[in-house]
Amino acid sequence: MNTVRYPNAKTRAALLQRPAMEADTAHKTVADILAAVQQNGDAALRKYALQFDKVKQDRLTLTASEWKEAASQLPKDLKEAIRQAQQNIARFHRAQQRSEKKITTTPGVVCWRESRAIEKVGLYIPGGTAPLFSTVLMLATPAKIAGCQQVVMCTPPGKDGKIHPAILFAAQLCGVTAVYKTGGAQAIAAMAYGTQSVPKVDKIFGPGNRFVTLAKQMVQQQGVAIDMPAGPSEVLVVADETCVPAFVAADLLSQAEHGPDSQVLLVTWKEALLQKVREQVQQQLKALPRQAIASAALQHSKLILVKDKAEALQLINDYAPEHLIVAVKDKKYFTKHVANAGSVFIGNNTPESAGDYASGTNHTLPTNGYARMYSGVSLDSFTKKITFQKISRKGLMNLGPVIETMAAAEQLIAHKNAVSIRLKHLKRKP
Amino acid sequence: MNTVRYPNAKTRAALLQRPAMEADTAHKTVADILAAVQQNGDAALRKYALQFDKVKQDRLTLTASEWKEAASQLPKDLKEAIRQAQQNIARFHRAQQRSEKKITTTPGVVCWRESRAIEKVGLYIPGGTAPLFSTVLMLATPAKIAGCQQVVMCTPPGKDGKIHPAILFAAQLCGVTAVYKTGGAQAIAAMAYGTQSVPKVDKIFGPGNRFVTLAKQMVQQQGVAIDMPAGPSEVLVVADETCVPAFVAADLLSQAEHGPDSQVLLVTWKEALLQKVREQVQQQLKALPRQAIASAALQHSKLILVKDKAEALQLINDYAPEHLIVAVKDKKYFTKHVANAGSVFIGNNTPESAGDYASGTNHTLPTNGYARMYSGVSLDSFTKKITFQKISRKGLMNLGPVIETMAAAEQLIAHKNAVSIRLKHLKRKP
Repeated sequence: MNTVRYPNAKTRAALLQRPAMEADTAHKTVADILAAVQQNGDAALRKYALQFDKVKQDRLTLTASEWKEAASQLPKDLKEAIRQAQQNIARFHRAQQRSEKKITTTPGVVCWRESRAIEKVGLYIPGGTAPLFSTVLMLATPAKIAGCQQVVMCTPPGKDGKIHPAILFAAQLCGVTAVYKTGGAQAIAAMAYGTQSVPKVDKIFGPGNRFVTLAKQMVQQQGVAIDMPAGPSEVLVVADETCVPAFVAADLLSQAEHGPDSQVLLVTWKEALLQKVREQVQQQLKALPRQAIASAALQHSKLILVKDKAEALQLINDYAPEHLIVAVKDKKYFTKHVANAGSVFIGNNTPESAGDYASGTNHTLPTNGYARMYSGVSLDSFTKKITFQKISRKGLMNLGPVIETMAAAEQLIAHKNAVSIRLKHLKRKP
Repeated sequence: MNTVRYPNAKTRAALLQRPAMEADTAHKTVADILAAVQQNGDAALRKYALQFDKVKQDRLTLTASEWKEAASQLPKDLKEAIRQAQQNIARFHRAQQRSEKKITTTPGVVCWRESRAIEKVGLYIPGGTAPLFSTVLMLATPAKIAGCQQVVMCTPPGKDGKIHPAILFAAQLCGVTAVYKTGGAQAIAAMAYGTQSVPKVDKIFGPGNRFVTLAKQMVQQQGVAIDMPAGPSEVLVVADETCVPAFVAADLLSQAEHGPDSQVLLVTWKEALLQKVREQVQQQLKALPRQAIASAALQHSKLILVKDKAEALQLINDYAPEHLIVAVKDKKYFTKHVANAGSVFIGNNTPESAGDYASGTNHTLPTNGYARMYSGVSLDSFTKKITFQKISRKGLMNLGPVIETMAAAEQLIAHKNAVSIRLKHLKRKP
């Protein structure tokens, strides 16, 4: 980790730079995959499974026994942990349901909003070495609470052609039944266009590698909504003398192990902390199975010494971290004034991994500085709001002339007529 | 207008097709404009103003007198109408502010969300024959209520190098002071990248022609957020024998006058209505200044006869209209069960133009079927939500083992360690 002491205005921009993302060299590859799936459907999915994943697939769906036996293949304590996490996630997201009041904006003019679920959503769960069942919980739980009628899930099978039982168990727990064995850009294409097996959806959620990310971006241009733009994961810890350096180091490492392009930052105005945290990082790093990945991430990670709290806050808001850990005495200063962050973890007993798994907040969060303008996934992500308005006879008498005047000034006379013809009618029949 | 009687399952998909949008032939033109503005800033904006709009610009900002004199150049009744509309819009959007409760998901684990304004937003207001001051109200009012710190507005000047005073008056009323005289794709580029005059923003709002739309799509790929994807405007009126055919016709025409690619649909299960509405449309059309535009839109618009209410509802939800007018006896059936629509206008006294200008709802709405998964612009569009979590010593004792088990199962050992190291510490110091 690089140490930066008292950055000045000139060095700050460079300091807060994210690691450069890989250039979009896969554009043509992904465009070809999208076109092939759009044209050939399931056949293309099978072809790519064989080509990329060396898996020969007779069917993209699960057999009844694969589905039924998932739960029995997991240890009891894992199932119980998944259940508890799902309950917390459900509690937090259920509390986001709310109805809004009707507003009388002018006497006789009543306006309101109502939420409706997005009917068809697609969840992408990456494959790879570890089964990301926590992402199933984070996406399927709010989808079901929102009331989405069709929740489609795609995930690539392992070399044995099977999906990890923890992923299936999490899906079952959330009430997701439409699970398809397909991954990569082709899975995104399948959900965007529909195939013989996989239903077409209106919005696609979930993380993935650069091919998946690019495919999501490309189908977004074609009218399918996506959860948010993606980038490497990151954490910023702001700490003072009240923190526990070993905890801070553990939090930095838990983010660093995500991938070599992850970024972890410590910001403090206590110089003594720099060395303490650095030592703890080095010591804890040695014991990690994903040491190589974490080390790579630490290459472009930083310990930053600033002059005071105010500068630390400014730096946080400029960086807009996905995860912000507040390990300082004056917590309120940061929680009150933080303007840009995905999720905030307050105090020494709140590790970021709590939010990754089980506290109840969503772990699908804006990275890459997108916390400046995007929220993490929530119940809102699975719904849209319709506005309603109802105008009475009296209301139109009150508001009609305003509409007529404005429409005329915008030279939209048919807009004006829609009011005038009604006002004439109302005056005729009092 | 084409009449379609009792469509069957086969003809329905074609029936609900939108008019084909122009192909993206402008891709290279827009990419060149974006690159030029990114490189040359204000100089590029001036060059394009001269090239496309034949306007020679010494400055992109307003003079003090242009700004000061705007209000005095407008008739009093228009100013009053704009004020009333702005009040209604403010009332409706202010009611969308709300704070959320803290949720205890597990004893000792507290989670909540807080809204924060997006700090820097850009509003694009198109130029052209008519001054779209209503769009200024619809975008700037929620931006200011949300508390956006920097609200930048770009709009192209007329041939005289001036901005229409109604646009400036609306901006002043909403408290927008950063107004720049630039339009088209180059204005989008200016707000996305920043120039010497125009500040860089995080999210860009507003309608525009195909160059503007394409520029918004392209900067979105580069990490600037946009309000929503754009398409031609549309209305669907569902009506029965309780409607007033002249009102329905006026509503259809008010949407048809927007542009030749607008689409207007009538859906009814009362055959007698088809002829009545058609006659009214033909009669009212004759008197319209924008008759040619409305006639072109009517070419691909339809009067659709279905067998009953249920089929009408199904058709509405499949089409997902930007605007839905409910002119039937059983209004509740439609307002309750509508799943996909941008904004709904209920009853004979609620013309769509009320929502376009003054009822209080936002007129920036999802078109092109995007109402299936997007909401219209609201206060939410100018904010993001941050999640917070605070875990007590007791809370971590309760939840920690769940996190450890899940992290281990996902093979993320540093995630597990961040909990284990704390639990060890807590057990040591009770």
